[in-house]
Amino acid sequence: MSWEEKILKVEPYVAGEQPKEKDIIKLNTNECPYPPAPGVEAAIRELAADADRLRLYQDMDATPLVQALAAQYGVGEEQIFVGVGSDDVLALCFLTFFSSASKEQPLLFPDITYSFYDVWANLYRIPFKTMPLKEDFSIDPVDYIPSLSGQSNAGVIFPNPNAPTGLELAPPEVERIIEGNPDSIVIVDEAYVDFGAQTALPLLKKYENLLVVQTFSKSRAMAGARVGFAIGNEKLIRYLKDVKFSFNSYTMNLPSIRIGTASAKDTAWFKETTGKIAATRERFKAELRRLGFLFPDSKSNFVFAKHPAFTGADLQARLRERKIIVRHFNKPGISDYLRITIGTDAQMDRVVEALREILA
Amino acid sequence: MSWEEKILKVEPYVAGEQPKEKDIIKLNTNECPYPPAPGVEAAIRELAADADRLRLYQDMDATPLVQALAAQYGVGEEQIFVGVGSDDVLALCFLTFFSSASKEQPLLFPDITYSFYDVWANLYRIPFKTMPLKEDFSIDPVDYIPSLSGQSNAGVIFPNPNAPTGLELAPPEVERIIEGNPDSIVIVDEAYVDFGAQTALPLLKKYENLLVVQTFSKSRAMAGARVGFAIGNEKLIRYLKDVKFSFNSYTMNLPSIRIGTASAKDTAWFKETTGKIAATRERFKAELRRLGFLFPDSKSNFVFAKHPAFTGADLQARLRERKIIVRHFNKPGISDYLRITIGTDAQMDRVVEALREILA
Repeated sequence: MSWEEKILKVEPYVAGEQPKEKDIIKLNTNECPYPPAPGVEAAIRELAADADRLRLYQDMDATPLVQALAAQYGVGEEQIFVGVGSDDVLALCFLTFFSSASKEQPLLFPDITYSFYDVWANLYRIPFKTMPLKEDFSIDPVDYIPSLSGQSNAGVIFPNPNAPTGLELAPPEVERIIEGNPDSIVIVDEAYVDFGAQTALPLLKKYENLLVVQTFSKSRAMAGARVGFAIGNEKLIRYLKDVKFSFNSYTMNLPSIRIGTASAKDTAWFKETTGKIAATRERFKAELRRLGFLFPDSKSNFVFAKHPAFTGADLQARLRERKIIVRHFNKPGISDYLRITIGTDAQMDRVVEALREILA
Repeated sequence: MSWEEKILKVEPYVAGEQPKEKDIIKLNTNECPYPPAPGVEAAIRELAADADRLRLYQDMDATPLVQALAAQYGVGEEQIFVGVGSDDVLALCFLTFFSSASKEQPLLFPDITYSFYDVWANLYRIPFKTMPLKEDFSIDPVDYIPSLSGQSNAGVIFPNPNAPTGLELAPPEVERIIEGNPDSIVIVDEAYVDFGAQTALPLLKKYENLLVVQTFSKSRAMAGARVGFAIGNEKLIRYLKDVKFSFNSYTMNLPSIRIGTASAKDTAWFKETTGKIAATRERFKAELRRLGFLFPDSKSNFVFAKHPAFTGADLQARLRERKIIVRHFNKPGISDYLRITIGTDAQMDRVVEALREILA
């Protein structure tokens, strides 16, 4: 075998466009249209004055950030795990919690969902099975409950709200899945929960097998800082840390610990910003409806919409001509849809205007 | 199987102590005793003024940093891969380049070496074989050359200088290993190369199967920023990026890209700082010799030393009583040794003084 034949070859992921042009309305990667909490800038200034500190390895437990999150969510510090974005946290969760999977007892997740689940499963050689969404894009809890579906599993993961549909699974349904899996770990990926959906965090008091994962990338306007976290019972978090520290002791860097902490502490900014985005989303949905668009009732910071008169790819291209970038997934079952991130009111007004022109 | 039985359980790694006391001389994790390049502080101030930018995903190619490194090392931009510390880069290299390993064709590395190699190999289920160092702790190139040793391999990795010995393998010997493995990728892990050892980078012009990995943690005084990189031919770097982007598109955050770039550009600071540390190391070695210590001739920013009159653990404890923290590895073949990071001249004078007291 030559050295080149020995290399692992994969299909690289193509992320949403990060345009360099000015004047673009960028609604393709679910970023927040508002700047981070004011404390973030202050924390960066403090770090500048303290730049000498960078020569040392940072606190690998990211203690100040963990403390701020524990206070924010009313849980113990030992219930929190932080990582370099929720992708980092989730990938580690796959490795830690789903490695027992087999063909007979696979990991379960929806067939239309976050596109990295199957990637991580393949990376760690975790057999998985995808469960079809219902016609209306909703998750059927029955599919994930062994006693009802006859399908045993090594674990369950789903985003709530789901991506890229934006649909929320109601709390009682989420609880049914957790309760119905006393022998498996259920991960609720709440990357998009902060815009009006309900978190599963209160269920932690009742269920040891639940892990909730969230991120600072969307609702805290810090995609560029890479901060994600998991909350669960102490035992799960300890196992997760053991695996993490076994192969890489230091990942979240000092700047992220500092600015993440500043952000986590600012509840007022957080409520105001996520509230604004949710209000803009509702206005935008009303406009879309008027224009004849069809879409699941998103509770996230994006809307997943199609129009009977256009293909998704066509509509995406026509918006791009008007300097508006949205996301299109060329996948079975969803290729007619566009995922449109919620920007500011002014940005969404321009989108509506552009759509009116296109439909005229 | 209960949910707890389904979890992957590992032995957590115990990193060097990060003390909270004041007045400690911390020589246990090979950090730089001097602050980062002055441009780093300036870059943080600029980031504060530009904190709004954190709401967006950063440039996943870390372009400015890659450009600065390409200029620094006289290679093409497409020859560079950057990651969240060299641990992140190395782990990804294991996955990308060594996944073809089998019991008959294992990955090869020294038996006394960086402690994460076997961890990553196990993580990715890569069969490996460790080759014993010679009596004097040096690497024998013959062990790694299939035509000489009869041992075929799926790849070779070794640190140069080696850790925790600090010993450099001379450039012609490094070249012998690369040349003797035309069908395998050879990774030279140069975390400690900048303190007087010679880099394998010039060999990139002759050998396609060579990859060099370096870090900002030691010689650039930025352990807390998590910046590492690999340099190799375009093909290797492309394969590495494909694997990386297949499962996590964004890892190096915006602050690290900004401050890494500022640091990479400052050649004068870099030369001065690494030169100072190398000079302090030579002074310290002379003192150790006078005190009766035995040690391989380190070319790194630490010295790996033992004293005939003490066990390693005992000497470590006695230094700790004197507020000096050094590293001790309780492993076969090296448990008599201490790994002592090179600090400032003043710090090393205090270490010598403490050792004199202990030996008196």
